[in-house]
Amino acid sequence: MNRLDDKFARLGVDSAPGQEVRQRATGLELRGGTLGGIPVDFSHGDVDAFTPIPGSLDTFTKGFHEGAQQAYTEYRGRGSIRESLAEKLAAFSGAPVEPESEIILTPGTQGALFLAMGANVGRGDKVAIVEPDYFANRKLVEFFDGELVPVRMDYFGGVNGSGLDLPALEDAFRSGVKLFLFSNPNNPTGVIYGRDEVIAIATLAQKYGVNVIADELYSRQIFDGREYTHLRGLDMLDPDNILTILGPSKTESLSGFRLGVAFGSPRMIERMEKLQAIVSLRAAGYCQAVFTDWFSEPEGWMAQRIAKHQAIRDDIYTVLTGADGFRVRLPEGGSYLFPQIPEIKLGIGDFTRALRVQAGVSVTPGTEFGPQFTGSFRINFSQDHGAAVAAIRRTIEIVNRYRV
Amino acid sequence: MNRLDDKFARLGVDSAPGQEVRQRATGLELRGGTLGGIPVDFSHGDVDAFTPIPGSLDTFTKGFHEGAQQAYTEYRGRGSIRESLAEKLAAFSGAPVEPESEIILTPGTQGALFLAMGANVGRGDKVAIVEPDYFANRKLVEFFDGELVPVRMDYFGGVNGSGLDLPALEDAFRSGVKLFLFSNPNNPTGVIYGRDEVIAIATLAQKYGVNVIADELYSRQIFDGREYTHLRGLDMLDPDNILTILGPSKTESLSGFRLGVAFGSPRMIERMEKLQAIVSLRAAGYCQAVFTDWFSEPEGWMAQRIAKHQAIRDDIYTVLTGADGFRVRLPEGGSYLFPQIPEIKLGIGDFTRALRVQAGVSVTPGTEFGPQFTGSFRINFSQDHGAAVAAIRRTIEIVNRYRV
Repeated sequence: MNRLDDKFARLGVDSAPGQEVRQRATGLELRGGTLGGIPVDFSHGDVDAFTPIPGSLDTFTKGFHEGAQQAYTEYRGRGSIRESLAEKLAAFSGAPVEPESEIILTPGTQGALFLAMGANVGRGDKVAIVEPDYFANRKLVEFFDGELVPVRMDYFGGVNGSGLDLPALEDAFRSGVKLFLFSNPNNPTGVIYGRDEVIAIATLAQKYGVNVIADELYSRQIFDGREYTHLRGLDMLDPDNILTILGPSKTESLSGFRLGVAFGSPRMIERMEKLQAIVSLRAAGYCQAVFTDWFSEPEGWMAQRIAKHQAIRDDIYTVLTGADGFRVRLPEGGSYLFPQIPEIKLGIGDFTRALRVQAGVSVTPGTEFGPQFTGSFRINFSQDHGAAVAAIRRTIEIVNRYRV
Repeated sequence: MNRLDDKFARLGVDSAPGQEVRQRATGLELRGGTLGGIPVDFSHGDVDAFTPIPGSLDTFTKGFHEGAQQAYTEYRGRGSIRESLAEKLAAFSGAPVEPESEIILTPGTQGALFLAMGANVGRGDKVAIVEPDYFANRKLVEFFDGELVPVRMDYFGGVNGSGLDLPALEDAFRSGVKLFLFSNPNNPTGVIYGRDEVIAIATLAQKYGVNVIADELYSRQIFDGREYTHLRGLDMLDPDNILTILGPSKTESLSGFRLGVAFGSPRMIERMEKLQAIVSLRAAGYCQAVFTDWFSEPEGWMAQRIAKHQAIRDDIYTVLTGADGFRVRLPEGGSYLFPQIPEIKLGIGDFTRALRVQAGVSVTPGTEFGPQFTGSFRINFSQDHGAAVAAIRRTIEIVNRYRV
């Protein structure tokens, strides 16, 4: 097996969210029959339950009618859109954004992350990532031939924060880590990093000259009126060493347009544009127009959306914590929840397949977020409220069938 | 300078099509004043002059209203769309396409090319490319740490074909080349490979076990009723060793939706999907719906579009061949034309900047297509007919100002 074969062997995708349709459940010894109920795909949010920002189709249509200037933008995105977004993102994150050099529009937040990693990670470069964290983070490090330096997050233990192991983070930085990538709120746990933790990250990164990519995809959906600290807003790190990633695919349900944004370090953004030129040229030109609705949602729309997600979170949390042997930390932001289940006879991958076949419920196995999470799965609870709670009840029933 | 710095230093983008807005023309000693006339950006087609397939916005709108199932497709694209496209592409290319395993929808044809190269090129792998050919080809080989093996095409000399140096291609294959990538019709010359040449490529690739990526982006726009030979349609090469790339961004003017497709080798497509999962997840879900209009254009629409392009080609060709010292091969397909200009005092990069400033005309320097093309530039003549011809006359006038 050559290097490339080996690389792709490690780039598994069958358990990735949205890919369940390609799975086969053959060879499993299933216990009991199927459970009726509305199927729920917890692997991603349901844009039929939470629909896109009102007016987004009209905005797209206007963009289409603008013709060539909207179809063929600079690779980093149309100038007028970058200008309006830079102003909104500066206000949101608490630090200035220069529209000409400090922002790039990308095909989804995934696109931003890929370009950012490609711009920073060379062969053999050490990259610190959190465990658990978004599954693509580790795959990207491997794809760009970097060296993964995992740092543990004790999300059950962290009370006023994430439980990130800060001494371990310092050890990692001291060992020569070049880049630190983390999501806040954390994917898959929904944990928010405390202000002290974000300050500690900034202090350590500045001390050791580490670049930081902050994936703040869910930072507009914060529950219980909690405080959220933007790393870049602290103004503690060299601005050319921080990149922040955001996008309207989640809370705002614009995923079907594939829009994301990265802002901050001009050095990184210049490289990202070079890379975008050979990856996919630009975020779809007509779709870029829809960015103008972002951070300009109708009065009260975001507040109501957050409240509805908080209500679903609360009901699912209640059901899960009432089930014997389940353990879960209450998410403080975002739409993910990462329960730990009691010991069962199935591996977590087989369990997710059985769950899909027997209960019509799709979840993402914990091992996607770190090899040690063999007894956890992730759900995205941005779903129809009633269907989601019912699906969680079915999930508990399936777990109970396979208990040791 | 470390490896990554070096890699990005080579990934220049300032002269790339559409990026001219970021160029500075300072430091040039300009001769004479500016020439009036409608500005023409020959770096890409003008979708205001040749508008998208009729009804494509309505199709997009229908897709949007389908909601979640159109927003969140498999990474390789929505199943029902792959099915309908597979049938159309099989008929077009003359060989079957299995919708489940042999086709992937991508963010533009550039997206298809990037994924295909990522799936095939590992560190140190030898990749044969044609000179001249699409500029991203060489950049992709470099980005994936492959080794470039250029093969010359004598496009002025080739009479019944492209003029590809077939003995040199065999030498390259014999030397251990793993992959051959070529565009047909050729970008930037508009040359079509003759049937004998395509057969020779297939024969050599089969003999030496070389994988082939055929970029057939412009293969629906063939002039003068010429014969066009699809490599895959010959059925001479192991089907798992050929990948064909196509998309509706050019002749069909759907570039603003960012849609492309790769079909053929299941092995390559499986890898491409794994890569897509970390690059940008999928072609924008709502945009994928627009694929249904492709190869289903209104009766006569494509024929008329090709005729109009042929008429522009003829007029520009006449003007250029009438100018002293210009040399150009008549394009047989596609919208590109690659004139060689007489000797001038400016380097080709400075010439393109002067041309832009003094005549409002943007062209792409020949050196993007191979380092030896220092006296050529590329135009995309999918423009307003009258404006394009006038812009070519201004271009000749600017060349004349700087003659040695």
